[in-house]
Amino acid sequence: MKITKASIESAAARIAPYIHTTPIMTNKSINELYGLDLYFKCENFQKIGAFKIRGGMNASLQLTPEQMEKGVATHSSGNHAQALAFAAKMLGIKAYIVMPESSPQVKVNAVRGYGAEVTICASNQAARESTLQEIVDRTGATFIHPYDNDEVITGQATCVKEMIEAIPDIDIVVAPVGGGGLLSGTCLGANYFKPGLKVYAGEPEGAADAVLSLQSGKVEKAPFVNTIADGLMTTLSERTLEIIQAHVADILLVSDDEIKAALRLVYERMKIIIEPSCAVPLAAVLKNPGLFKGKKVGIILTGGNVDLSKFKDWF
Amino acid sequence: MKITKASIESAAARIAPYIHTTPIMTNKSINELYGLDLYFKCENFQKIGAFKIRGGMNASLQLTPEQMEKGVATHSSGNHAQALAFAAKMLGIKAYIVMPESSPQVKVNAVRGYGAEVTICASNQAARESTLQEIVDRTGATFIHPYDNDEVITGQATCVKEMIEAIPDIDIVVAPVGGGGLLSGTCLGANYFKPGLKVYAGEPEGAADAVLSLQSGKVEKAPFVNTIADGLMTTLSERTLEIIQAHVADILLVSDDEIKAALRLVYERMKIIIEPSCAVPLAAVLKNPGLFKGKKVGIILTGGNVDLSKFKDWF
Repeated sequence: MKITKASIESAAARIAPYIHTTPIMTNKSINELYGLDLYFKCENFQKIGAFKIRGGMNASLQLTPEQMEKGVATHSSGNHAQALAFAAKMLGIKAYIVMPESSPQVKVNAVRGYGAEVTICASNQAARESTLQEIVDRTGATFIHPYDNDEVITGQATCVKEMIEAIPDIDIVVAPVGGGGLLSGTCLGANYFKPGLKVYAGEPEGAADAVLSLQSGKVEKAPFVNTIADGLMTTLSERTLEIIQAHVADILLVSDDEIKAALRLVYERMKIIIEPSCAVPLAAVLKNPGLFKGKKVGIILTGGNVDLSKFKDWF
Repeated sequence: MKITKASIESAAARIAPYIHTTPIMTNKSINELYGLDLYFKCENFQKIGAFKIRGGMNASLQLTPEQMEKGVATHSSGNHAQALAFAAKMLGIKAYIVMPESSPQVKVNAVRGYGAEVTICASNQAARESTLQEIVDRTGATFIHPYDNDEVITGQATCVKEMIEAIPDIDIVVAPVGGGGLLSGTCLGANYFKPGLKVYAGEPEGAADAVLSLQSGKVEKAPFVNTIADGLMTTLSERTLEIIQAHVADILLVSDDEIKAALRLVYERMKIIIEPSCAVPLAAVLKNPGLFKGKKVGIILTGGNVDLSKFKDWF
């Protein structure tokens, strides 16, 4: 295993100048309403508005000078695109980002705003991969995968490390699972920095690949993909599954109605803006109170990059 | 003048066990976009979700034992209702709140949730006042006005005091103006705790009573009342006007379109939920950059109690 306690500590030091140590919020009214003791790690206040900058920055900072000269590349419609574009801007290197034509214009603009070169492609996996490959072949840029990458996972692990430092007696951490970059990093960080700290994951019923993969022990596809939690539609990789199955306490499924109720609770009570994907861990906690009552429970709020025109579909 | 430096200091100590010292946020992307240096005092994270708890708590805590026995009363459709209900709950006393039938059910529920006795009346000023008077006559409860009250103003002044303590070299503070409780408290607090600290106000064009009152020197009505900033529709009192005209640098008018643009900026860039009324000071700053460039500018974000179903009208 390449990811060690020391490599996560190095990553934390490496990315510190570029990221925020995000605040941890508590909310008395939510705790009282549900009889819980919750601690929300606010990565929605992170640089680029999401935790993804941790992994993107950590990977970019470890390129060789030769690699730096040729830049970085990825395909993403979401926060990893912004993370890599921002990291490249910080380092003064080129970023080539392939985005599907279905990407919201506001996200395309944000990526371009960081100075990245955006290539729009058809909205399917084959087009994304072939377009990226063409760019990598032409430019020599280094492909940085959003989660199937050790340096990215190591970067994401710094989030739970901060949480443990801030709340040393924390009992449980809950993260969402999409491709598993954050979840596998959280599993490793918990294991290294507070052995015995339990890690649960929340997953949407409409993108239930991780729960199936955990059962079968190999990477499975979701039976169907349709969820408000649009950041969690990706599937695990063998790399992330291996880490997750070694460490995760359980993966808890939630419906879109449960996600919406948790989302509303955060907006109304905490007065902060989070993506629907971030409401998945809270929804999982509220659905399974017996697992969490009497414990100090950390919840990773992964990001806050929402298209405000979507509000009307959610509330 | 009853409100002194010492009385604001006493109020701050008196209410400290019941309120939050709210965080001050900065946002690099907004500062870079507009070439400004802004500090946002986040009263949306305050108890009850708004600064009003400062004044409501300060007034309630100074009741005599005889007054406490009979409780407090007010009419309000908004944050003052919640503030007084919460204060009464903290003190274990009765709160009688008259709310117009147009009040959103969510706000009525919140006030009842604090244990207050809610009386619904017709949605006009005469009905509100007569219903309240009947309750005060019957119960002997003490009427606590949302802003035309020295103890309330003194409580609101604690907000700018915190801001000055956190950012001693602040140059300007900008607050919204409705009835003038927050603005007059901010004027006094600025004057006492950092003489020379300039205070500007933002006011919606669709509730432009304060700017007219400042011109004529007497309490004026707005020419028309129609604005997204529904917390600012009230008019100054003689008490608040007197303080404001002695201290305010200027009152800056903004249109609803400008308020909406500032609201969007806060939601998209800062990832926090604020009421439209809170976006008024930021809108005023963005409209008059020449007044604020090169200065450290504090902006009071007054509250975050929004009906999520309104989002579709704003974005």
